Amino acid sequence: MDWNLNHRALTLVEDLPQRADQLRIRQQEISGGGTVWDFGVDVPGSLGAGLALAEICTAGLAEMSLLPGEVAGGSCPHIGVAAEQPVAACLLSQYAGWQIAVEDFFGMGSGPMRAAAAREELFDKLAYREQPGLCVGVLETDRLPDQKVIDFISERTAIPADQITLLAAPTASLAGTLQVVARVVETALHKLFELEFDVTRIVSGYGVAPLAPVAADFLSGIGRTNDAILYGGRVKLWVTGDDDSLQAIGPQVPADSSDAYGRPFLEIFEAAGRDFYKIDPHLFSPAEITFQNIETGRTHRFGRVAPEIVAQSFGFSG
Amino acid sequence: MDWNLNHRALTLVEDLPQRADQLRIRQQEISGGGTVWDFGVDVPGSLGAGLALAEICTAGLAEMSLLPGEVAGGSCPHIGVAAEQPVAACLLSQYAGWQIAVEDFFGMGSGPMRAAAAREELFDKLAYREQPGLCVGVLETDRLPDQKVIDFISERTAIPADQITLLAAPTASLAGTLQVVARVVETALHKLFELEFDVTRIVSGYGVAPLAPVAADFLSGIGRTNDAILYGGRVKLWVTGDDDSLQAIGPQVPADSSDAYGRPFLEIFEAAGRDFYKIDPHLFSPAEITFQNIETGRTHRFGRVAPEIVAQSFGFSG
Amino acid sequence: MDWNLNHRALTLVEDLPQRADQLRIRQQEISGGGTVWDFGVDVPGSLGAGLALAEICTAGLAEMSLLPGEVAGGSCPHIGVAAEQPVAACLLSQYAGWQIAVEDFFGMGSGPMRAAAAREELFDKLAYREQPGLCVGVLETDRLPDQKVIDFISERTAIPADQITLLAAPTASLAGTLQVVARVVETALHKLFELEFDVTRIVSGYGVAPLAPVAADFLSGIGRTNDAILYGGRVKLWVTGDDDSLQAIGPQVPADSSDAYGRPFLEIFEAAGRDFYKIDPHLFSPAEITFQNIETGRTHRFGRVAPEIVAQSFGFSG
Repeated sequence: MDWNLNHRALTLVEDLPQRADQLRIRQQEISGGGTVWDFGVDVPGSLGAGLALAEICTAGLAEMSLLPGEVAGGSCPHIGVAAEQPVAACLLSQYAGWQIAVEDFFGMGSGPMRAAAAREELFDKLAYREQPGLCVGVLETDRLPDQKVIDFISERTAIPADQITLLAAPTASLAGTLQVVARVVETALHKLFELEFDVTRIVSGYGVAPLAPVAADFLSGIGRTNDAILYGGRVKLWVTGDDDSLQAIGPQVPADSSDAYGRPFLEIFEAAGRDFYKIDPHLFSPAEITFQNIETGRTHRFGRVAPEIVAQSFGFSG
Repeated sequence: MDWNLNHRALTLVEDLPQRADQLRIRQQEISGGGTVWDFGVDVPGSLGAGLALAEICTAGLAEMSLLPGEVAGGSCPHIGVAAEQPVAACLLSQYAGWQIAVEDFFGMGSGPMRAAAAREELFDKLAYREQPGLCVGVLETDRLPDQKVIDFISERTAIPADQITLLAAPTASLAGTLQVVARVVETALHKLFELEFDVTRIVSGYGVAPLAPVAADFLSGIGRTNDAILYGGRVKLWVTGDDDSLQAIGPQVPADSSDAYGRPFLEIFEAAGRDFYKIDPHLFSPAEITFQNIETGRTHRFGRVAPEIVAQSFGFSG
Repeated sequence: MDWNLNHRALTLVEDLPQRADQLRIRQQEISGGGTVWDFGVDVPGSLGAGLALAEICTAGLAEMSLLPGEVAGGSCPHIGVAAEQPVAACLLSQYAGWQIAVEDFFGMGSGPMRAAAAREELFDKLAYREQPGLCVGVLETDRLPDQKVIDFISERTAIPADQITLLAAPTASLAGTLQVVARVVETALHKLFELEFDVTRIVSGYGVAPLAPVAADFLSGIGRTNDAILYGGRVKLWVTGDDDSLQAIGPQVPADSSDAYGRPFLEIFEAAGRDFYKIDPHLFSPAEITFQNIETGRTHRFGRVAPEIVAQSFGFSG
């Protein structure tokens, strides 16, 4: 199955110019070829920009919505994510699996361009690769990508620079915060993938997570957006196959399967000497996961939300 | 008022080909004429397919949405239904009032094609009938309809076979489950119609019900989708006219007006010797109904949800 | 920045003819020039008409949604409002700041036409004015506007009568009730504007309020729609700047900052001898307001909802 992830994403990108003023985003052509959309680096961006960014990041295969909600008694909007094609939407497209480091530029790369590069082991295991002739990528970064970044991606995807579109937003921005929290279903998929669960058994996904307040800085932004998912995220997956495997893997899926679980992410990060690779990777998962086996009709729920940790992380005092 | 129900539905059907891959649905032309869309018989379908199916079934006169929610402490997505024209959307179109039995084929028929056949007493009482030249119908069935089914419908609607479009999904499928739960407002309308309430007094409707887990088999699917509405459905109707009639009829409307109320539908069905016609028809109604009289400003609420029965029926153990 | 508020609104108005039957609204051409859309005076209108009216009133810069919810244990749909450009959407467009009194006609005027007239002090302070060549306005009124009203607006906007479109709905109608409750974010913005807060610091807004039942008469309608916001409205604003000013102004913003707070609006109104101008203007604000400072990452919450007063005002007996 060819998902045409990059072409699907481009269709959504083509709607952006007419919405740019309203969403407070800005397009810029790179002189040596390529297009960069600023979703929050030198412009304020917006929540609507975050919804657009998150949908483009899934190639339009997941639908995001802003919903009312509460955290520990205070109102806090939530993000709803409906993914009909969770493997294509979340793993082949949305997952931030490509670290783009070019000289002094650094960004977490996600979106359909990953399928054109297909450099991650994930693409071998899922036997997917695109040769689309153009590509669309999302960068979580504090700086706008420049020609060097475009060229770097062009080399690795074999796509001409002028056919590359990059959308950039810092973690600590309106759009950036939203698009990270909108990874709630993706986080569950990726955790399952890492646990070597056969993700092709997952036919649909629906998730919800509290929208973290925009942070003052990158580190605090990372902390809050992770906590939104680890302690506030709830995901339901509709799956095929047997129940025993779900019962067996279930307890390993939610964030509380990790020993690190139980305090705000930033504390865990500090305790690990600010070294991501010293943090238990099992931590990165939604607070609650429910499997609904559509073949046996059974439902299996694991984990639970911890609104008091979310409230602490978000700085909700009362 | 001619609602053009079949033409409205066809407009929505025309959007399906470009969404077929994403929604996991499949179109097939019947050699002797007619089009069949498989929403879950030989294909997996999806929740999005269910939303599309439900909207087409109301001729686009009701809007469906997937929303986060809880049942007995566990997260469970809900279906929201906004019906601006509840009589046209729900009674003239969505109600599954036409049993299609042709040789070994059986399906519950719903959607705009019913108005073209106008075989049900309902169409006489509501003085409505369409002669649209084409028709669109929905079938809740475990088998795809074939030429015999198309011909059967063609005879009864006087519409040429090649102008007939049927959409089919089993109760126990992603799309089928969703489209049945999305009948929450329709169930209230139909109960009121059966109670001989003047349904033309109903100007708008809004309902919500928990999305039942897809069941392993037809019988269990019938049980859960009924319970979603009977014990979990909440409907608000905006009505005109006097309050006395609302106070008088109100207690007879919600599911708890039936003596059968109080245990999962499947138990009731078994107790009735698996004979639908021995079940009190008053049972088929949402758990809670609220009338808002837009002329007097008064609100009347009847019934109440029973989340513990929903959780039991859905197989939510904790 | 020219928001083209009137042109944006007209684009939305142009969608109305094809939806008129479904929304139960009616267009009428005024013989001397101008177009009037009846959203609930001589036609029933609908909730969908209310959503359309509310979005047109913000020039399409805010998105409205109908959501399930509860008030004091009973189900009650809520209105969600997402405003990406809250100053343009709410203050320059949606605020009902223009009282249109022409002979025996009276209506509260809102929508983009206000920016074409620019008669309010608000437009000087915010340095905004449009010369659009056409205009779109919303009138909260029990009577349809006629030629006199069109001419009145034409004179004050210098726009030819035949380029003027007015949308009218009574407070006590389906669409009218909804569009007033949909002012929940606007109410917060306007209160802040009156408190001389620099509203350009507000980058995004999200609010939710319970949809009041349609009232039997104007007075009761005014009471309920106000109570929906004063006692049931929750607004989150994403802002820039310092925290001290937010902490200082915060307690003055929610409705409970007023001595009048604590009983249904209609009682307050009666106690004031039915004279709006004797009511403490500080009362007009949502029940709860949360500021999220996107520069410092801090969140400040003020006020609280009072569902028991909402239930009393709405006539929810249990």
